[in-house]
Amino acid sequence: MLSALDAADSLAPFRTRFALPAGIVYLDGNSLGPLPAATPALLADAVTRQWGTGLIRSWNDEAWIDLPATIGAAIAPIIGAPPDCVIACDSVSVNLYKLAGAALMLRPGRRKILVEAGDFPTDRYILDGLARTTGARCEAVPRGDVAAAIDGDTALVVLSHVHFSTGAVHDMAALTAAAHAAGALILWDLSHSAGALAVALDADNADFAVGCGYKYLNGGPGAPAFAFAAARHHAALQPPLQGWMGHAAPFAFAADWSPAPGIRRLLAGTPPVLAMAALAAGVATFAGVDMAAAEAKSAALAQCFARLAAARCPGVAVEMPHRLRHGAQVVLRHPQARRVMAALIAHGVIGDCRPPDRMRFGFPALYTRFADIGIAVDTLAAVLASGEWQDARFDALGQVS
Amino acid sequence: MLSALDAADSLAPFRTRFALPAGIVYLDGNSLGPLPAATPALLADAVTRQWGTGLIRSWNDEAWIDLPATIGAAIAPIIGAPPDCVIACDSVSVNLYKLAGAALMLRPGRRKILVEAGDFPTDRYILDGLARTTGARCEAVPRGDVAAAIDGDTALVVLSHVHFSTGAVHDMAALTAAAHAAGALILWDLSHSAGALAVALDADNADFAVGCGYKYLNGGPGAPAFAFAAARHHAALQPPLQGWMGHAAPFAFAADWSPAPGIRRLLAGTPPVLAMAALAAGVATFAGVDMAAAEAKSAALAQCFARLAAARCPGVAVEMPHRLRHGAQVVLRHPQARRVMAALIAHGVIGDCRPPDRMRFGFPALYTRFADIGIAVDTLAAVLASGEWQDARFDALGQVS
Repeated sequence: MLSALDAADSLAPFRTRFALPAGIVYLDGNSLGPLPAATPALLADAVTRQWGTGLIRSWNDEAWIDLPATIGAAIAPIIGAPPDCVIACDSVSVNLYKLAGAALMLRPGRRKILVEAGDFPTDRYILDGLARTTGARCEAVPRGDVAAAIDGDTALVVLSHVHFSTGAVHDMAALTAAAHAAGALILWDLSHSAGALAVALDADNADFAVGCGYKYLNGGPGAPAFAFAAARHHAALQPPLQGWMGHAAPFAFAADWSPAPGIRRLLAGTPPVLAMAALAAGVATFAGVDMAAAEAKSAALAQCFARLAAARCPGVAVEMPHRLRHGAQVVLRHPQARRVMAALIAHGVIGDCRPPDRMRFGFPALYTRFADIGIAVDTLAAVLASGEWQDARFDALGQVS
Repeated sequence: MLSALDAADSLAPFRTRFALPAGIVYLDGNSLGPLPAATPALLADAVTRQWGTGLIRSWNDEAWIDLPATIGAAIAPIIGAPPDCVIACDSVSVNLYKLAGAALMLRPGRRKILVEAGDFPTDRYILDGLARTTGARCEAVPRGDVAAAIDGDTALVVLSHVHFSTGAVHDMAALTAAAHAAGALILWDLSHSAGALAVALDADNADFAVGCGYKYLNGGPGAPAFAFAAARHHAALQPPLQGWMGHAAPFAFAADWSPAPGIRRLLAGTPPVLAMAALAAGVATFAGVDMAAAEAKSAALAQCFARLAAARCPGVAVEMPHRLRHGAQVVLRHPQARRVMAALIAHGVIGDCRPPDRMRFGFPALYTRFADIGIAVDTLAAVLASGEWQDARFDALGQVS
């Protein structure tokens, strides 16, 4: 039955774009995407030929200087954005600071940054730091209260489109409209939706977005992130981090910062070319992919996993994915989640944990098979039935998991 | 005579640590260091084995999570710093923002950030952006007036140890003492001195420093940068960019930011592992190198180049390197600097240009030979004598040069 689903899967051929290790069922691409098959050769070329032989000349001859814009343009269709509204650079944290700081400048007199309680911590940390330095204040409210909490003092609403832990999805169009109705701006963190769901930043009228290069976009561990700003904001955008790569003429070495036209003003320092080369290869795994089809496949995989786990894995609580829309992930709860996950990994099924008791499994559409779901649930059922996860050696699961 | 200098050079054997292209004299390592011989294999291992096979497990199993600290500790002896006071992350621009922002917090009530007019532009841009968001103000004074301009309103002095264009060196100990005498803090930009000169951050009592990974440290194009903070400031340091990787317990996903003990609190987002692997290989080219000997060799190369150019290259004005101390670079001025440099590059001698009329040549000690100086001056003399640089095809020199 699972093999029949794989046989009928129109996205199945995309799995050959990845170099997945034998004997592993990898359900953690939502934390770190796997190695694309094309990446080693592309990166070796960037290192040996472009850097080693081309040296400084490659900034021009290999268009290194344009990588943030060209990779941004390649990410754009994956998130429903115009190509000149996305730029690849820095980390999610740094891009969030830049865009949120710029947003505060666009709403002078308003002091509130509204966030969801329990959203991904770094977003809150970064916004708290920005608030401390600018005199703004950060207010966190429960998920269901966000829309009602947008008021006349709200400069910016910052939300994760897909919640990192639960996989719950916000209604981007509705919350964006609610923010605008109150005169506020909105910034979407797409870390858990870019490359997983059919995102429509432009159609949903979003102001700003940030997102991650190393999860669903397969850009490599700690890959550079991306930033989106709607074209209507470009001319007035003043990021607090104003560096030479965002200058209108970086190599004029002028005394004062003049922002580059368009999205490039969001650049700060020199882009990390080798990491950008790997990110470009990761983004290229999405060439020709219909994101609506990808979202539908991930949803089917998640539903399948959740149903089988509920039926066959006593002792875990399955958080059933929302039927309407859900991130490409499923959570199973167990009081000893870290030990159970460590045992599962020892048997070649890789997911991760989030406190206090969540085992998190991701189902990226480009390389996950329905057959993998069967293996994962079989293995989990066996680990639970054997009780081997109670062995002390499974206390050793590292902090990043 | 030049070959005799090479034969007597105790640092000559280090040249085998680099994969330099045949037929090129590379005098632009002060802008982009060349490829270390060990980097391709180390990076291929990071890509194929650590990422491809290890996947998410490598954050623990390969200690990716510790890379910022382990690379920082490897950079520390190159800049005369304790190993636990340096961390590798982000770009120079972003690190400058973090440290300067933290410095303002350490000097409440003081509003001035003092800089040198004509220092590297991104430093000024970044500090202007920080000033705009925090209510501080940035004051630029001529080089010789810096010490006198440090006053009771000065929170922070920011200076480049070696000037990016002229190669002039500040007296770190004296200016640091002057800042402290006025109750101010000082931050040194080591972009053009880390790996070039014998820097002594600890002995000179510096408060903070930032520096570049892709110039003399040979970390690859756009490599991550580093940040230094003296241990006496760690406990009170509150960077405006407070991200999850700088949290005391990043994987506890707590609602509030609690800074990690020590230098790690300067991290913001997830470190770019592939770029860090290349940076680690670049920093490793300094293993066993005596920085005083490296500085002395670069000074000898620079003096040699300047003397020969002055004798044999009519039409260029040689800015003689300061005999006491100078960056590992020499500037030749020519009204058509960009065209002359383009012609020189076409003949296999690579330097770069800085406006309006500067040709800049760098002399990193680990791989530059005295024989290279001879070839470079011969080539420049021939280019100037032939007048070929007047050919319109040499207008095409790219913007990064």
